[in-house]
Amino acid sequence: MKNFYISKTRRLRSTPFTKKIEEQGVKSYTVYNHMLLPTTFSNVDEEYLHLKKDVQVWDVSVQREIEISGKDAHLLVQLMTCRDLSKTKVGNCYYVPLIDPNGGMVNDPLIYKLEDNIWRVCIADSDVLLYAKGIAAGKNLNVKIFEANIDTMAVQGPKSFKLMEEIFGNEITKLKFFKYSFYKFQNKKFLISRSGFSKQGGYEIHVDNIKAGLELYDHLFEIGKKYNIKPGAPNQAERIEGGLLSYGNDMLISDNPFECGFEKLVHLNSDVDILGKNSLKKIWDKGI
Amino acid sequence: MKNFYISKTRRLRSTPFTKKIEEQGVKSYTVYNHMLLPTTFSNVDEEYLHLKKDVQVWDVSVQREIEISGKDAHLLVQLMTCRDLSKTKVGNCYYVPLIDPNGGMVNDPLIYKLEDNIWRVCIADSDVLLYAKGIAAGKNLNVKIFEANIDTMAVQGPKSFKLMEEIFGNEITKLKFFKYSFYKFQNKKFLISRSGFSKQGGYEIHVDNIKAGLELYDHLFEIGKKYNIKPGAPNQAERIEGGLLSYGNDMLISDNPFECGFEKLVHLNSDVDILGKNSLKKIWDKGI
Repeated sequence: MKNFYISKTRRLRSTPFTKKIEEQGVKSYTVYNHMLLPTTFSNVDEEYLHLKKDVQVWDVSVQREIEISGKDAHLLVQLMTCRDLSKTKVGNCYYVPLIDPNGGMVNDPLIYKLEDNIWRVCIADSDVLLYAKGIAAGKNLNVKIFEANIDTMAVQGPKSFKLMEEIFGNEITKLKFFKYSFYKFQNKKFLISRSGFSKQGGYEIHVDNIKAGLELYDHLFEIGKKYNIKPGAPNQAERIEGGLLSYGNDMLISDNPFECGFEKLVHLNSDVDILGKNSLKKIWDKGI
Repeated sequence: MKNFYISKTRRLRSTPFTKKIEEQGVKSYTVYNHMLLPTTFSNVDEEYLHLKKDVQVWDVSVQREIEISGKDAHLLVQLMTCRDLSKTKVGNCYYVPLIDPNGGMVNDPLIYKLEDNIWRVCIADSDVLLYAKGIAAGKNLNVKIFEANIDTMAVQGPKSFKLMEEIFGNEITKLKFFKYSFYKFQNKKFLISRSGFSKQGGYEIHVDNIKAGLELYDHLFEIGKKYNIKPGAPNQAERIEGGLLSYGNDMLISDNPFECGFEKLVHLNSDVDILGKNSLKKIWDKGI
């Protein structure tokens, strides 16, 4: 297959890590949420094998975080998803299909419940910010919605646990899958979740202080030498093998959550208010 | 500056013209509305000079068209923009700033009024589909909203007029700026507007029949030989020189339409219903 260059303009936003990643020899990018996502450093087959064996750091700042806060925040997040959020807890991440009023997939974010009325919606490649703003305006909800200044490093691979333990202490090894907590590096606090777009295990470090984040980035590579650490990126073969779906690749707004295999995340019998509820009921009754 | 490759996946949608454009030697792409936009064939300086002298065909299918129809279509389009649409006419295109409830720029599309209650919103790089769906759901509007299967070729440059006249007849030379009409090629009807993202003049051909569109594409290059026709792309230097703004490059959701120089398109004294009206009034009263 022929290779093509990417034309960089301001519209394709860089991340705080772009400069370092280019020094580390990134070869190619894709674009995701109007931002650069590194895709290869050597070649995808080598990177696949390395990811399954050692540890990689990925710049996944493209997973933009839409913060929704205010009196009606829970209501708004619930309106957008077919998953019942009534029993959700602070400290957890939830994988939720976002749907439109026709039951079509809008996005499949991981959402972080920070407080009862503060959520971060960590999005796949579509402008959830605009969808949320539209609903809030239409329904006159009391919410604040904005894209947070957060950039994310994923530390993925079997050796990610030892590496993170060396940096953040034994506490972090106790963090369970799809939980998050706060950890300190050089006296700066980071929100870290046990999550990531691979099946090899690892963490995502959500950076709101760029200076501290860049220092941590360097420190990861310094300490990680003994674990054969390398810069990397979400690997198509690995994530497909692991059953992870990708919005835009495997599902579109023309697909409903049943077609995507999300049946267990569609709670039509709960009494929570979901925008696409009636549409999904009709789809379910007709058979998929 | 170092060059980087683009990683093509299904998520970065191709267009019906991609295959032809790659045969014609496209070198680089950008991504716009989750789709590939060709950016260079030779080099941007040569292409700049050629655009100002001859004629180019651009694959600008990335200008996705969001169709909004139904009883409340006019109301919904008006809610999204600060420009008063009450006197708009079928057959015209309108450049309208779309704004969020805080007065921030959501997009700057050209909108086509097809019928009183059928609009096509020809968008810059943000998911207006989701914004419109959100508002419609929140307000319970009677509308149908979808991304139309339309792909656009722009024919731009001083020799575009002679070329298009040869293909579509003398009628098309009478089409005025920001008007559209329907023209036939090989008995297939095309919506063609006098518009385009350059200051050199030209047309945009909105293709809803891919087979006919591909035949027209080849025909343009066949007939265009004598006009020194070349494939091309929106040229950053030319559009900046011409004062054309680019959403994502020159404006973001954090900018209001006054800051973008759209004062003449902000109609706060009309009695039409605009979502961001109060916010824009406050911004105006405080001074920008």
